[in-house]
Amino acid sequence: MENRLDPKALFSLSYGVYVVSAPYEKGCPSGCNGQIANAVMQVTGEPPCLAVCLHKENLTTACVEESGVFSVAVLEEAVPMTFIGNFGFKCGRNLDKFEKVSFRKGATGAPLVLDWTLSVIEAEVVRSVDVFTHILFIGKIVAAEALKEGIPLTYANYHLIKKGKSPKTAPTFIFNEVK
Amino acid sequence: MENRLDPKALFSLSYGVYVVSAPYEKGCPSGCNGQIANAVMQVTGEPPCLAVCLHKENLTTACVEESGVFSVAVLEEAVPMTFIGNFGFKCGRNLDKFEKVSFRKGATGAPLVLDWTLSVIEAEVVRSVDVFTHILFIGKIVAAEALKEGIPLTYANYHLIKKGKSPKTAPTFIFNEVK
Repeated sequence: MENRLDPKALFSLSYGVYVVSAPYEKGCPSGCNGQIANAVMQVTGEPPCLAVCLHKENLTTACVEESGVFSVAVLEEAVPMTFIGNFGFKCGRNLDKFEKVSFRKGATGAPLVLDWTLSVIEAEVVRSVDVFTHILFIGKIVAAEALKEGIPLTYANYHLIKKGKSPKTAPTFIFNEVK
Repeated sequence: MENRLDPKALFSLSYGVYVVSAPYEKGCPSGCNGQIANAVMQVTGEPPCLAVCLHKENLTTACVEESGVFSVAVLEEAVPMTFIGNFGFKCGRNLDKFEKVSFRKGATGAPLVLDWTLSVIEAEVVRSVDVFTHILFIGKIVAAEALKEGIPLTYANYHLIKKGKSPKTAPTFIFNEVK
């Protein structure tokens, strides 16, 4: 008998919505690239490490691999869909995603997104794990800053309230978009 | 100048609250062990894979390593603290955590917790990544079932509304418990 694999079972996992970014020195005027990600979590406390999972086809993945660093911006609930669309449904090979975005370079050289962001975290990659279509990067946190108080956007809210979709390269794509 | 590392920046990351379990054949009458975890996320869609991060000192970690499988139960918001306490602040070396819990064995042999659970997922370990104090297990999902509709308990809710604490072995411990 084949095992049952109900996509709905995966919908109840909880995530935030983040911009994961990295330096892209020669690629565009801002020297940065980034993308929307939901697969982000802290994995250790001492030293503090963060895991992020990115699709192999995404430009940000190549930027993280090349630079060995990444940043995470925790988006707030009020973030407009146009802001998410700039990072989530466009490719940095065709446009400079940071052209109209407020940011500063962090200690690692990765860009820290400042718009619609509750906090920013920077990390140096200490492990890269090949997981079929994706690379799971584990980074040692070197700087973390809370920018303001507020409610983080959750992935559930993104889907249910903002009616957001997932691109085909999202870790959760097959489960979220089927049916 | 030392980089700023503000624990509050990590508080805005979003998680659910889960019971991660594995077979523990000779360890106790139920043949199962499990623990509360928040560091759980889907990392790929095809094949669907789940990552969970567990502390090296935890018995469940040894059970996952030995059996090569694990299950995840997604807890609902209404779950009482006594239920969480049974899995989260006790050690399966001293008591059978499944003695008073409804469960059934899944296709992998891992126990599927049925109480206070929205959905259950089973996976076979395909990668084990040593991350300092923790092991990050990546498992290929072999079965997933939605048990009922409901609101998943988030880690934010666990801390803010339920006034829950994190044990020292939690990935987020240092940030959540140190002011």
